[in-house]
Amino acid sequence: MKYDELFALLRRRGVLWPTAEIYGGAQGLYDYGPAGAQLKRQVEEAWAAWFIGLSDDFYRIDPGEVLPEAVVRASGHLENFTDPEVSCAKCGSHFRAETILEKWRPEGVDGLSPAQIGELLQQHPVRCPQCGSTELSVPRPFNLMFGFEFGAAGGERAYLRPETAQSSYLAFSRMWDVGRHALPLGIGVIGKAYRNEIAPRQVLFRMRAFTQAELQVFFDPASFPLPFASAADEPLPVLRVPRRTAGEETPVFQSARSLVDEGLPEFYVFFLVHMYRFFRDVLRYPKESIRLFEKSDTERAFYNRIQFDFEVKLESLGGFKELGAVHYRGDYDLSRHSAGSGKDLSVALEGGQRLLPHVLETTFGVDRNVWALADLGLVTEGERTVWRLPPYLAPSTVGVFPLMKKEHTTEAHRWVEALRKAGVGAEFDASGSIGRRYARMDELGIPYCVTVDRETLEAPSLGSRTATLRQRDSKEQERITLDALTARLHTSRVLPRPSPLNGGA
Amino acid sequence: MKYDELFALLRRRGVLWPTAEIYGGAQGLYDYGPAGAQLKRQVEEAWAAWFIGLSDDFYRIDPGEVLPEAVVRASGHLENFTDPEVSCAKCGSHFRAETILEKWRPEGVDGLSPAQIGELLQQHPVRCPQCGSTELSVPRPFNLMFGFEFGAAGGERAYLRPETAQSSYLAFSRMWDVGRHALPLGIGVIGKAYRNEIAPRQVLFRMRAFTQAELQVFFDPASFPLPFASAADEPLPVLRVPRRTAGEETPVFQSARSLVDEGLPEFYVFFLVHMYRFFRDVLRYPKESIRLFEKSDTERAFYNRIQFDFEVKLESLGGFKELGAVHYRGDYDLSRHSAGSGKDLSVALEGGQRLLPHVLETTFGVDRNVWALADLGLVTEGERTVWRLPPYLAPSTVGVFPLMKKEHTTEAHRWVEALRKAGVGAEFDASGSIGRRYARMDELGIPYCVTVDRETLEAPSLGSRTATLRQRDSKEQERITLDALTARLHTSRVLPRPSPLNGGA
Repeated sequence: MKYDELFALLRRRGVLWPTAEIYGGAQGLYDYGPAGAQLKRQVEEAWAAWFIGLSDDFYRIDPGEVLPEAVVRASGHLENFTDPEVSCAKCGSHFRAETILEKWRPEGVDGLSPAQIGELLQQHPVRCPQCGSTELSVPRPFNLMFGFEFGAAGGERAYLRPETAQSSYLAFSRMWDVGRHALPLGIGVIGKAYRNEIAPRQVLFRMRAFTQAELQVFFDPASFPLPFASAADEPLPVLRVPRRTAGEETPVFQSARSLVDEGLPEFYVFFLVHMYRFFRDVLRYPKESIRLFEKSDTERAFYNRIQFDFEVKLESLGGFKELGAVHYRGDYDLSRHSAGSGKDLSVALEGGQRLLPHVLETTFGVDRNVWALADLGLVTEGERTVWRLPPYLAPSTVGVFPLMKKEHTTEAHRWVEALRKAGVGAEFDASGSIGRRYARMDELGIPYCVTVDRETLEAPSLGSRTATLRQRDSKEQERITLDALTARLHTSRVLPRPSPLNGGA
Repeated sequence: MKYDELFALLRRRGVLWPTAEIYGGAQGLYDYGPAGAQLKRQVEEAWAAWFIGLSDDFYRIDPGEVLPEAVVRASGHLENFTDPEVSCAKCGSHFRAETILEKWRPEGVDGLSPAQIGELLQQHPVRCPQCGSTELSVPRPFNLMFGFEFGAAGGERAYLRPETAQSSYLAFSRMWDVGRHALPLGIGVIGKAYRNEIAPRQVLFRMRAFTQAELQVFFDPASFPLPFASAADEPLPVLRVPRRTAGEETPVFQSARSLVDEGLPEFYVFFLVHMYRFFRDVLRYPKESIRLFEKSDTERAFYNRIQFDFEVKLESLGGFKELGAVHYRGDYDLSRHSAGSGKDLSVALEGGQRLLPHVLETTFGVDRNVWALADLGLVTEGERTVWRLPPYLAPSTVGVFPLMKKEHTTEAHRWVEALRKAGVGAEFDASGSIGRRYARMDELGIPYCVTVDRETLEAPSLGSRTATLRQRDSKEQERITLDALTARLHTSRVLPRPSPLNGGA
């Protein structure tokens, strides 16, 4: 679907809409409605099962979003978390310098420094995209954090965290004590991060408040035990730097093993495979729409030693978009926070020597992936719009309908209550024809519908009664008892889990 | 347990700790560790099942925390959301005026206006609680919202929402269209709210960032159909205004029906009962520790027509503390946002006439209740510390132990994996004696432990094998198969659900 069509559909169905919509909205802020909120929670749980579930030494925590100034000073965000910004003296509009330059530079702007961007802007005959004036300012660094007075005394400042990762670094020392005093130790956070984007756009893609799911794995670079053999033969669609920076766009499938042969560390490639399988097998993105896009020395953040972005091709946004990444951050983060806090964050290894652990980060944009699930999953087949969500991600498990409102409503409510009491979600719907109700459930991706009818009531007890089960994708129908339905729905909701890194048989 | 002892235990066990602990923390900000985060999520899900589950026309949404200035201007928060604050000219400390006055006024400060507080402070010989100086300022109104520059242009401001309720009012119009165009319509939000408290204290009780679970029910005051008979005989521990303001502290049990006879509306009393049952039957607080504390005309917020706070007696905090409330807000909120946004928020009733719906609000402090669950549930029995959490709230379902690390670890991992694949959480633990492992699980409130031993391995297949199941509270032990354990754990996790307002048999 096209961008406008997709957003309109999601809005109409109560999946999401702009915050403060009745006030005209607020740039870069969105609210999730009932179906969107439930889908988002399911995506988060799927992420947690897949990433935190990788090891008994990986933990999920829920830290706060507000950070005192000392933290963002130490992390470097106060100084460096900026975008070059350009303003128009005539109309007063503000733009990201990259956005303006992109229009004039077909080869793109990736990897340019703010200084280079400034130079290029002066060489090009750039005009204000808003009013056409040439009175554009030179680019100035604009800090993307939201900061505010904290406390009543004045003079103290705090910031909304610009990435959830910082919360995990702050928690490392505590979690070392809560855990087994052993590496690798994983700390995962699903939560909000905030950025004062100069030009928010594309709904869930450049937001000012967004949800990240990030796992920080703290490890000893001399020894990261993992079952690489289970990943070695996986073909990964990669676009490595030499081909990439030469302008190619199509990834090449090469095995995980071959990436190690080319010099990438096993632990890094293992996590590339793990995340790739999450996109392909859990979220079920078509594998031909995924590419692992390597960032070059000049493009990646200076603390990243290796970075591959996971990009997925989305029709609504006209091409490949970054939905996640794997970063090897070295010991940058813990060394900055050791210095900033004055607390030694090194740990004692079994042999007695001390080590400042390195960090392997997997990052995942929850909102972006909700959008991607809509873009890739919502398909129109003739009159019919179906959201082909995996059943464990769907906002609900089953729609329950009375065939005739008058005769079958009480019985349908019994089925709904019984399903809910068994811990399975269920949506009652009695309005409009059965066809219309199917259509509503299809559009929200609900994988099953069950209709209570005359035949249902012929059997004497709830246990012996059957109703018509209809599958979303195949449209096949069958009679099913309540018990069998409950069991089927329970199974459909179990989240895919990985083989564990430690333990296991 | 005493306050210090309880906080130390929760911190040590990784339930919660101050944000940026390695930097000395930040006043009023806390992080949840693995067990705390999971417990908090379970409390949230229990709330949603109990409150959103009340009707098919009640919806849970997930709106953003950042609100544009126009919203908080319309809601009155920009002007009125203030606490009177006093500062010390000598030491520079800042205090809530109430806090200072409380020390000098045994009858308390409830119900005093800021002006009255100012007068009383000048009449009393008050001193700075920090340095003892008498150089205290007159109270000035201090706005409790965190506000910041929003966007790159300058001049635009946004605020962290001071209550989740505002997000539901903003969503009303959209949800009217998403829903069935019928009242009562419920919109529930579980999410963060933020207040720049002058003097944060008591860990989870006066926080600067906290989680609320709030349900706003929009209804027609002329007709709120609900099954009052199901609530009429419930004895409620109430402390109504005349006795209360005369200084009494002990509630009197009186039936829901008798409160209606005294003039409270049925719909209001119905929700008092519903929330009371949540505290008593779902969270399982002892009923002798709960009281429904009516607020007088001068005490409650001016937009509330009726307000009862739900207070629970907590040893760690030295008395009754507010953990939730039921508010009848009239049409204040929708009329303010109609005026502020210029959008008519009235709806067409079935007869054709238009109505600005009234709002019944239930509010619930998630963090406060996590603390209350710890205060009321964590008990010491000789050497043993047990957290008596209801099984559906516990941070995990079962601990799985190999009796001997070497011989039984592989089998124990098989059980863990099988339980997790069946969608039941499970914690592997092999360190220390079985007694120590029991103690760790007891302290985190995990209701079951299962130990894999020699007998387990005697049976040929996973299906026929048994392990020793031990119950947290009774300490009883029995042999159990994996299938029976899975079924028992599934049942233990099903959340209590109410009879529905609409539908049902």
